[in-house]
Amino acid sequence: MEKLFVQTSTHPYFIYTEEDIRFSITELLPKNYSSYFIITDDVVAKLYLDDCLQNFSQDQQVAHSIIPHGEQTKSVDTYYQLLTDALSYGLDRQSLIIALGGGVVGDIAGFVAATFMRGVDYIQMPTTILAHDSSVGGKVAINHELGKNLIGSFYPPKAVIYDTATLTTLAAREVRSGYAELMKEALIRDESFFHDLLGTSLAALTNDQLVSHLQSGMAIKAEIVEADERESGIRKHLNLGHTLGHALEAELGYGKLTHGEAVAIGMLFALRVSEKLFSINLPYDELYNWLEQNHYPLTLKRLNPDLLLRKMKSDKKSVHNKVHMVLVKQIGQIQDVEVPDQDLALLLDTFLRELVIE
Amino acid sequence: MEKLFVQTSTHPYFIYTEEDIRFSITELLPKNYSSYFIITDDVVAKLYLDDCLQNFSQDQQVAHSIIPHGEQTKSVDTYYQLLTDALSYGLDRQSLIIALGGGVVGDIAGFVAATFMRGVDYIQMPTTILAHDSSVGGKVAINHELGKNLIGSFYPPKAVIYDTATLTTLAAREVRSGYAELMKEALIRDESFFHDLLGTSLAALTNDQLVSHLQSGMAIKAEIVEADERESGIRKHLNLGHTLGHALEAELGYGKLTHGEAVAIGMLFALRVSEKLFSINLPYDELYNWLEQNHYPLTLKRLNPDLLLRKMKSDKKSVHNKVHMVLVKQIGQIQDVEVPDQDLALLLDTFLRELVIE
Repeated sequence: MEKLFVQTSTHPYFIYTEEDIRFSITELLPKNYSSYFIITDDVVAKLYLDDCLQNFSQDQQVAHSIIPHGEQTKSVDTYYQLLTDALSYGLDRQSLIIALGGGVVGDIAGFVAATFMRGVDYIQMPTTILAHDSSVGGKVAINHELGKNLIGSFYPPKAVIYDTATLTTLAAREVRSGYAELMKEALIRDESFFHDLLGTSLAALTNDQLVSHLQSGMAIKAEIVEADERESGIRKHLNLGHTLGHALEAELGYGKLTHGEAVAIGMLFALRVSEKLFSINLPYDELYNWLEQNHYPLTLKRLNPDLLLRKMKSDKKSVHNKVHMVLVKQIGQIQDVEVPDQDLALLLDTFLRELVIE
Repeated sequence: MEKLFVQTSTHPYFIYTEEDIRFSITELLPKNYSSYFIITDDVVAKLYLDDCLQNFSQDQQVAHSIIPHGEQTKSVDTYYQLLTDALSYGLDRQSLIIALGGGVVGDIAGFVAATFMRGVDYIQMPTTILAHDSSVGGKVAINHELGKNLIGSFYPPKAVIYDTATLTTLAAREVRSGYAELMKEALIRDESFFHDLLGTSLAALTNDQLVSHLQSGMAIKAEIVEADERESGIRKHLNLGHTLGHALEAELGYGKLTHGEAVAIGMLFALRVSEKLFSINLPYDELYNWLEQNHYPLTLKRLNPDLLLRKMKSDKKSVHNKVHMVLVKQIGQIQDVEVPDQDLALLLDTFLRELVIE
C-alpha cells in the first residue's frame, strides 16, 4: 500500500492509496468514533456505498446521506440539509464524517465537518482522479451564487483513503478532468513529470501509469500545503489556470465544462499571459496539442469578455479589486502577478478569439 | 488602558478595555486592511455606528451591514445575506470584519469572518457585559433550527476592543444577563471573586466595580481558552449552567429569557445536581438569594421535562446520546460528568417543581 505523510498545523495524517482499500476503512482510522456519517452522491452511492457500509459491524452506529451529483449541489441549501441530517442521526462531537466521492462531495462534506458543532473529524475517500487534488490539503467549501468556493474553511481530514479500483469506473471526461490538475502540478513543480504526462495517452492509460501519476501529483500537492497551509504564499501557485478556469465555470454555468476542462483552458491562458508579460517562450503548443489529442474541449461559444473579467475579479486571490494571476516563468518556477485590468482585457480578448468558434 | 494578552494556536491578540476606546480603533489594529466591513445590529447602530465610522478616512473603503437585534437573527439566512453583502461590497482576503455589538453580532460576524473566502481577519467590539465572555476565545457560530450554536468554528479575533462607555446604555436586563456569565466564571475558578459578586448590587453598580469584574472575568476566560482552545478538556467547564440554559432558551423560544437569565437558572440546576450526585453542600441558597435580590426571573411557566431533556441531549457536549453536565465539587473545582437519563429526569423534575409557578 502506498502511504504519503502530510503534516498540518493541527495534526498529521496519511494518504493511503491502494486497490480495493475501500473494504479496509476501519483499520486505517486513527481511533474509534461514537458514530459514522457517510456523505456521498447518487452516482457514487450506486457503485460503492454498500462496499463502504460493509466495513462496519452491527453494533456500530452508521448513517448516510446521498446528495445529487454535480457542482450545483455544493450550495448552502444542501449544506444546511446535511447539518440537519447529522443532527437527526444523532451525530456528536466524537463522530466521524466520511466523504465518499469526488471533489464536490469532499468539499461540502468537509465543510459540514468543519462547522458541525464547531468541527468534527472527517476522512476523504476520493472516487475520481480530479479529487486527488481537492482531497489533500484541507480546503473545504461550498459555492455562493456570486462565485465558486467563496464560503469555506481550511480544515484538514484525518486520513485520505484512495481506492484506485474506484477510478476504473470513471468516464473519459472525468479522466480528462483529473489529468488537467495533474498537468497543473507538473507545470508548477516538476518538468520531468510534465514530459511524462505529455507522453501519456489517456485513451491507453494503464493502472500503473495512473497510480504513478497520482503519487507524483499528490506528493507535489502535499509538499506545497505543508509549506503554506493557509495560502499566504506558495500555495497560491496551485491556482495556476484557475482564475480564468473558475470564471469560465461560473459564466458558462457549473457543469457545462468539467472543472479540469475549465482549468485546462485556464492553463493555456496563463501560459499565454506569461509569454507576453515575461517576453519568454513556454511549451504552449505542446500543451495545446496534448489537450487536443486527448479530446479536451478547446473551443468555446462566444463569451462576453467583460463579464468574464468581472468574474475573474471576484476570485478569492483578488486584492483591492485587481486580478492576481499565477504565471509561469519556466516549468517549476511560478509567480503570482497582479495583472492590470487593461492588459488583462486585451490578453483575454485575443485569447478568446483563438478559441471561440461560431 | 487595560490590556489583556491572549495566546491562540494561530496568533496572539490583545483585549483592550477603556472608556471611549471606540474612537481609537485604527491605532489598535495589527495592520492596514484593503477594506473594512462593520457588522452591527439595529439597536447598536443607532448608538455607536457613526462613532465607529469616524475612525476611518475618506480614502479608506468602509462598508457596513445592519442586522436585526436578537437571537433570532443568528440564522443561516442572515449569515448568507452577510456573505452576499461582503461580496457585493468587494471584500477580499485582505479585508477586516468588525463585529460591533453584543454576543449575537459577535458570533455571526465571527462566523462570517471564519468562512468568507476560507477566513479573513476580524475584531470584536463588544457593547454588552455579556459579550465579555463570547468575544474572548474564538467561538463563533450560528443557530440551527434544532439547537443553538450548532453550526460554527473556533476562529479567534485579531483584537477585542471593549469600550466600557457603551455599557452605560445597557438596560437592567442586559446587565443581569452579563453578570450571570461573570458569576459562572467566578464559580469555576475564583472563590473570592464569587464572594465579591455576591456582595455587589447590580442596581448600585459603579463603573470601577464593572471594569474590575470584567477584567477578572476575562482573565479567567482567557486563561482557560489558552489552555484548551478547542474544548477537548477544561474549556468545557465554561459550559457550567449552559446545558439546561441552552435547553430553556430553545424550549421557550430564543429571546424569552436573555442568555444570562437562562444560564443563571442552569447554574442553580448544576449546583443542585452537584449537591445530589456528590453528596455535598454548595452555596445554592447564597446564589439563589443574590439572583432574586437582583431581579433575575427565577420562576418558569410549566414546561414539559421530556422535551427539555431531549433538548439537553442535542447539546454539543453530548456523547453517545448521553447528557454531559459541568458540575461543581467546590468553588473553583469543576467536573464534567455523564448523567444517566433516569437520574437527570428525576433531578430535573424536582428542580422544575421548585421554580415553576402556575
